[in-house]
Amino acid sequence: MSTHWRELVADKRRRQNESIPKEWLITTPPQSLLDVTKVPEQCGLLSAKELDITNTVDVAVLLNKLATSQWSAVEVTTAFCKRAIIAHQLVNCLTEIFVDRALARAAELDEHLKTTGKVVGPLHGLPISLKDQLPIKGLETTMGYVSWIGKYATRDAVLVEILYDLGAVPFVRTNVPQTLMWGETYNNVYGRTLNPHNRTLTCGGSSGGEGALVAMKGSPLGVGSDIGGSIRIPSYMCGTYGFRPSYGRIPYAGAVNSMEGQDSVLSVLGPLSNSLSGIKTFMQAVISAEPWLKDSLARRKKWDNDEYALVEHGSGKQLCFAIMWNDGQVIPHPPIIRALEMTKAALLAAGHKVIDWQPLQHRELCRLVYLIWTSGSGEDYKAVTAATGEPVLTSMDIVDENSEPTGTLNTFLPEQQHVSAYQLWQVQKEKTALRQKHLEHWNSTVQSTGTGRPVDAIIAPVAPYTAVPHGMNKNRRMTSSTKGMRIPMSYVIALSSIRFREFIRKANTASFYLPDDPATFSDAPVGLQLVGRSQEEEAVLAMTEIVDSALSQYKTSTSASRL
Amino acid sequence: MSTHWRELVADKRRRQNESIPKEWLITTPPQSLLDVTKVPEQCGLLSAKELDITNTVDVAVLLNKLATSQWSAVEVTTAFCKRAIIAHQLVNCLTEIFVDRALARAAELDEHLKTTGKVVGPLHGLPISLKDQLPIKGLETTMGYVSWIGKYATRDAVLVEILYDLGAVPFVRTNVPQTLMWGETYNNVYGRTLNPHNRTLTCGGSSGGEGALVAMKGSPLGVGSDIGGSIRIPSYMCGTYGFRPSYGRIPYAGAVNSMEGQDSVLSVLGPLSNSLSGIKTFMQAVISAEPWLKDSLARRKKWDNDEYALVEHGSGKQLCFAIMWNDGQVIPHPPIIRALEMTKAALLAAGHKVIDWQPLQHRELCRLVYLIWTSGSGEDYKAVTAATGEPVLTSMDIVDENSEPTGTLNTFLPEQQHVSAYQLWQVQKEKTALRQKHLEHWNSTVQSTGTGRPVDAIIAPVAPYTAVPHGMNKNRRMTSSTKGMRIPMSYVIALSSIRFREFIRKANTASFYLPDDPATFSDAPVGLQLVGRSQEEEAVLAMTEIVDSALSQYKTSTSASRL
Repeated sequence: MSTHWRELVADKRRRQNESIPKEWLITTPPQSLLDVTKVPEQCGLLSAKELDITNTVDVAVLLNKLATSQWSAVEVTTAFCKRAIIAHQLVNCLTEIFVDRALARAAELDEHLKTTGKVVGPLHGLPISLKDQLPIKGLETTMGYVSWIGKYATRDAVLVEILYDLGAVPFVRTNVPQTLMWGETYNNVYGRTLNPHNRTLTCGGSSGGEGALVAMKGSPLGVGSDIGGSIRIPSYMCGTYGFRPSYGRIPYAGAVNSMEGQDSVLSVLGPLSNSLSGIKTFMQAVISAEPWLKDSLARRKKWDNDEYALVEHGSGKQLCFAIMWNDGQVIPHPPIIRALEMTKAALLAAGHKVIDWQPLQHRELCRLVYLIWTSGSGEDYKAVTAATGEPVLTSMDIVDENSEPTGTLNTFLPEQQHVSAYQLWQVQKEKTALRQKHLEHWNSTVQSTGTGRPVDAIIAPVAPYTAVPHGMNKNRRMTSSTKGMRIPMSYVIALSSIRFREFIRKANTASFYLPDDPATFSDAPVGLQLVGRSQEEEAVLAMTEIVDSALSQYKTSTSASRL
Repeated sequence: MSTHWRELVADKRRRQNESIPKEWLITTPPQSLLDVTKVPEQCGLLSAKELDITNTVDVAVLLNKLATSQWSAVEVTTAFCKRAIIAHQLVNCLTEIFVDRALARAAELDEHLKTTGKVVGPLHGLPISLKDQLPIKGLETTMGYVSWIGKYATRDAVLVEILYDLGAVPFVRTNVPQTLMWGETYNNVYGRTLNPHNRTLTCGGSSGGEGALVAMKGSPLGVGSDIGGSIRIPSYMCGTYGFRPSYGRIPYAGAVNSMEGQDSVLSVLGPLSNSLSGIKTFMQAVISAEPWLKDSLARRKKWDNDEYALVEHGSGKQLCFAIMWNDGQVIPHPPIIRALEMTKAALLAAGHKVIDWQPLQHRELCRLVYLIWTSGSGEDYKAVTAATGEPVLTSMDIVDENSEPTGTLNTFLPEQQHVSAYQLWQVQKEKTALRQKHLEHWNSTVQSTGTGRPVDAIIAPVAPYTAVPHGMNKNRRMTSSTKGMRIPMSYVIALSSIRFREFIRKANTASFYLPDDPATFSDAPVGLQLVGRSQEEEAVLAMTEIVDSALSQYKTSTSASRL
């Protein structure tokens, strides 16, 4: 290596700073201010209209105002660019910032609408943030690797191309953990992203930059990726909606990734947003663009309105949900149990049925997935980082960022060395068998639902805790049962966090290694995930809307003190 | 091993012989009779009605006669059982034979139709043969392995369960090559299956038992599997239709397989039949049974009538086909070139457009797929055969079946030893990139079709030669460009052989290692494959019908001597 990796980082950070318009710098609050979600409204940078725009969390409303020229694309883009940069100064969520490019695109869109009277597409004028995996022609894609600084894209990822075609306005990219294989967000290039609700807590990961940015309302819609929880964890920990689609429904071609060539347990792209309308709009628009014509791994399955109408689920009239109270290993913290209890009560009040889900071999499922990933991950990380000699991180703990990380490959990185292809096949074979067993387990619930169908969906925790202090969302052991709930299971196809507006005011004694002071978790959001059958995104969205609405009604009709 | 493997084979063969009703044994013709396709009609075992039934190649007609009680299920099943057993005595195509079970099922179906007036399902009463990978509860599944003799299934494969639900009558299983990874059909348990048109030639493989049986009209519909040509090669070499669907459209769960856990280049199940109506009926019926509810790897994609109506292909009015004259490496034998020329002329005469396909990196594609398979195949074969010590075959050459095979692992079996998981990932990564490149290559043809669309389908050879003498379909080197045309490419999703009724009467000098005496190939069928976009089975079927019909018309209107 000709240049010390820290010099490369310093240069990149300098260039990042230069990409921020000076007039958008704010006086940042003291570190002791933990909840920074109100700062954008208080800092004075945003005009009343810009606040109005960025506080419009319903993406359908936003798109309507854009389509009817009530707000121009330049106005909307400017507002979100400003708020995103405010957010970045508070929680360090951005990587590439390309305001000029976004504003030029927005101006084009405005011109098109003005001259033709028509929108370019269903996402006309909508600013969209992208996880730092999605190359845009002419921009760098570092994905948290020092060794990738200076790697300029020669073409857009397929999803980016489609988003442009749909009228969207990509405007920033967002931070990730090194390797992407952590449930927090920290790397040697950009450092750590913080949780906007409590900056001493992690924002989750790996799509942590997206989770934090969207929670700050710095983006109406973000794109993350998820292999073992990387959309669900940050959307949950930051209190946004997040959606993990099945393999291949959103095109991945042209995105950069970790562990490329690992063909058994795949990562998927999916949206984060503060509204379910944002999630649905994204899914429907991208699928309607026929991504399978452009991505050899994308699945040819059109958006299915019958599935969205829950035709296969009794038209949604009386659904039967199964509650997964725990994964058979770890009892979640009390706030999460309360969330499950409240959801159960809300669903019963709305006329649906609820049964208990019997967890099945979560520890084994985690073990198999961990073995698959780690069969080659260590060599992958070493190969990628070799160019600059940047250290491979061994934990997400807070380290003195001015000192040299000294990590040796002894914690998250696999003990497995030189696993043979044949050994890997044996594990993959076991995984496929266990997926099939899970599907049959799901089907067997037809005996206990009383609807004539197996359960329509599972309601489950995303984690046994809320957001935790930095370094404590320990996914170094995927075999740990605490991760079971985040691992894509056979039938787990699509997941959406259900946001509870109530934050935790007190927490009980933590069950294992977490601090037992409830104040530690103050203001951390609580959420749940809805787990549907594979490739049934339309139905999962519709059922999430039903659960969301049942919860709203229930919360209105009962005392909030019950939480 | 407590028992010498040859004793196990002798016992299994004895039990197989016992499963054949004695009264159905025929006086077999001398070995010198090469074309045995006429023997069933001449041997005197089949009644006029049984000949009428088994000569009804149009599966839609057969199903209609069953549904309207013109023919009972017992009559139809009896007829095909008898003809299958005649075929078996001529070309050695069967493994498990379960006439009693089939007749009992057929009687149940007759009873149901009689008492309710309704068919059980869209395949009511249709006998279906199955490749020896599809377990049926209570029967052995050996898949050509001595070590699996005595392995009785405790449940049906998902596809078998669905076929029973649809009203089908499974009645025999069919022969395969050891390991399934050969383009011929020979194993230590059942020996070799021969080509019915010329018994000195291979029937192809690995679904060779199906190809030979269907060509003998011993089954109206067979189920094979295909990873690198295993449905296409035997259907082509035996002169039947064959269809290789995309991953996951036909459920694989519960089937046994070679190299299980190899998750990158997957095998798929698909139909063989003497009619396109058979192919379509099978695909539509199985997909309509919603296999994704029962198989965790099956794809949720309903049968799409719009796709079958070619809505995305200009409603089929003026299609543009690309002819792949060769794979950029090997020029096919003259009969195959003539078949391509005739197809081109027929399509032009029918008002369609035809352009040339530019082959792209077939050698590289083959090399990558070969590296993926062989990264663990050697260990897989050794592990499976270890229980009895049966030899792992090293070629498909004719050996003296009374002598001990002496093969050492030096030819087909991989030189690669101890490939690491990480190394495998690197190859898989290259493969994914090349698939994407192929898709973009396909899309780029929009510049030259003149239809405003990229090419609608490719018409390609299945192999550069017709059926060849036993042992000469050398797929020991998948890197050999001769295999390029059979390898599933990025966009290759579904393929169907287009049968030419004309057989080769003369062949030109073979281009490489084949005998240069045209008489060698006498009576070998010629066919082609139609290659469509991924997951577009409905459109591929519709386009195959269009090509088939254009060829029929063309052949009627022109002199047969032109072939």
